[in-house]
Amino acid sequence: MLAHPLAPRHGGALRDASARYGVALEDWLDLSTGINPHPYPLADLPASDFHRLPDPAALADLLAVARKVYGVPAKAAIAAMPGSDLALRLLPLVAPAGDVAIVGPTYSGHAEAWRRAGRGVHAAASLHEATERAAIVAIVNPNNPDGRAVAPSELLRVAERLAQRDGLLVVDEAFGEVAPGLSVIPHLGALPIVVLRSFGKFYGLAGLRLGFVLGQDARVERLRERVGDWPVSGPALSLGRKALADSAWQSATRQRLAAARTRLESLVTGAGLAIEGGTDLFVLVRTPQAVAIHGSLARAGIWTRVFADQPDRIRFGLPPEPGFARLEAALGRVER
Amino acid sequence: MLAHPLAPRHGGALRDASARYGVALEDWLDLSTGINPHPYPLADLPASDFHRLPDPAALADLLAVARKVYGVPAKAAIAAMPGSDLALRLLPLVAPAGDVAIVGPTYSGHAEAWRRAGRGVHAAASLHEATERAAIVAIVNPNNPDGRAVAPSELLRVAERLAQRDGLLVVDEAFGEVAPGLSVIPHLGALPIVVLRSFGKFYGLAGLRLGFVLGQDARVERLRERVGDWPVSGPALSLGRKALADSAWQSATRQRLAAARTRLESLVTGAGLAIEGGTDLFVLVRTPQAVAIHGSLARAGIWTRVFADQPDRIRFGLPPEPGFARLEAALGRVER
Repeated sequence: MLAHPLAPRHGGALRDASARYGVALEDWLDLSTGINPHPYPLADLPASDFHRLPDPAALADLLAVARKVYGVPAKAAIAAMPGSDLALRLLPLVAPAGDVAIVGPTYSGHAEAWRRAGRGVHAAASLHEATERAAIVAIVNPNNPDGRAVAPSELLRVAERLAQRDGLLVVDEAFGEVAPGLSVIPHLGALPIVVLRSFGKFYGLAGLRLGFVLGQDARVERLRERVGDWPVSGPALSLGRKALADSAWQSATRQRLAAARTRLESLVTGAGLAIEGGTDLFVLVRTPQAVAIHGSLARAGIWTRVFADQPDRIRFGLPPEPGFARLEAALGRVER
Repeated sequence: MLAHPLAPRHGGALRDASARYGVALEDWLDLSTGINPHPYPLADLPASDFHRLPDPAALADLLAVARKVYGVPAKAAIAAMPGSDLALRLLPLVAPAGDVAIVGPTYSGHAEAWRRAGRGVHAAASLHEATERAAIVAIVNPNNPDGRAVAPSELLRVAERLAQRDGLLVVDEAFGEVAPGLSVIPHLGALPIVVLRSFGKFYGLAGLRLGFVLGQDARVERLRERVGDWPVSGPALSLGRKALADSAWQSATRQRLAAARTRLESLVTGAGLAIEGGTDLFVLVRTPQAVAIHGSLARAGIWTRVFADQPDRIRFGLPPEPGFARLEAALGRVER
């Protein structure tokens, strides 16, 4: 497949989209990311969160709450990072030497991170193929953009094999909040596994830049030491701690997102498109017209995600309430 | 000198101080950091800064404003980082191989960063001594905590010598806003120099985590690529851009900080203490009673900075307006 020149590097980046399609910034219905459109409330951020250096004791509190909500075993470690994207880019610093195999197509940041760290990178179509290709394997679970899921028991078997080759299994659970049964975190311990968790997607706070790295004590500790005493901002400490402790909001949000996904799926199939996969934060459609539909929707002020290396796929994030009707109308007007 | 067990790792960390000295968190007069106590106003942060992924176009805007205010030549590059502390910790990734000499005593993060990256680290008492010890030299200018300053022309001469040895000069200008004439940034270009700038100190927004790396194009670009597309938060992009463009606030603040420093110096000398140095964001006192004074002030709810490796020094940040009288009274009650 040829890379498509109209496919942007990532979702978001609305200012560039505005310039390209002549849509005012505030007029976009942004479905280009897998970020919850009903974010955790911002109210009551103390000014001191912005003014003072983040307090190490507040960081310890955040990590204690995160351990609980993610179900981290006592023998595993956790560290906070300024976004799970920056975290995955620092992983080569604490990984064993050698090439990396990435189960894909998936989020492009993984391949970039290892390449920029000077590693050989192999694309693999399955977890099985990846373990044949390299002793370091990276997988996004559930996968972005197709939602493909691998059971934790399977991941553990792979980690055992990689352990025998002094390897490492990287599991990016960026969309783990909407697939809690898939998480390998409760099984962390002796095996060479590093898990990444994103805070911004499920809680709708991607601008905060907060993520977590979890895994073996020594490896996570080395990464923690590399980033210093103030890895995340004061507002990230406050909001992260509050949101991660709010189990009522979390379960209401899981239901709300599942319902929105169902509604988005019927809207999309109602428009004659075939769903290839997804999670409760996005829906993936496979069609040879992906790029044309993306362009047509963009001209109508609806920003979706297409992929340079997967030109027959288009990803829709969940619309906020009033966005469903707008998307339905615009999809009806797409010339095909 | 022996390391002092009562000296905390860094300034700030008020919750630990509260537990140790029985002072309520909200009762502290915090003079333990060199952060401006009159911060840039927070008003009007749009909620979308928290919700959306930071827009790459907004990052480009921030960097354009930063180039202007820092006086970056066209042939030099700049990248934004989540705090100048995290930035300095990532520098070993783009530095030449070899040992590092650090002009000190200075901020402890520099030695930590290089050691954790596996480098040999040498402490040097002067820039001249440092260049004799290693081809990579790090200096904080003006220095923290003593305010020692090196002229840019001297730094350029050293960089020329290091260039002949395939070395690197790291200049941490964390307090550069209150010593604009010292900045080496306007001279950046072909020489192997990397400059670090902190946003949080002068603008009183240390909780935001925003800093900059400046220097040779290829080196800065490699670092930028390592940290990915969203190195800083949405609020940091907005507030950073606004504050860096506000030259009226900057010049009023420079005057205000200079006046506050003068006032703090007379207060401290009036209490019989000898000033060793400082900048317009802190004052350093040398006295064999440093740790005793620190403890006595802490019991009175005033948090100052002492240093494990420099037990005869105590650093005072600038108090906000009502803090002067409180500090004066408490210093008067210190038993000596």
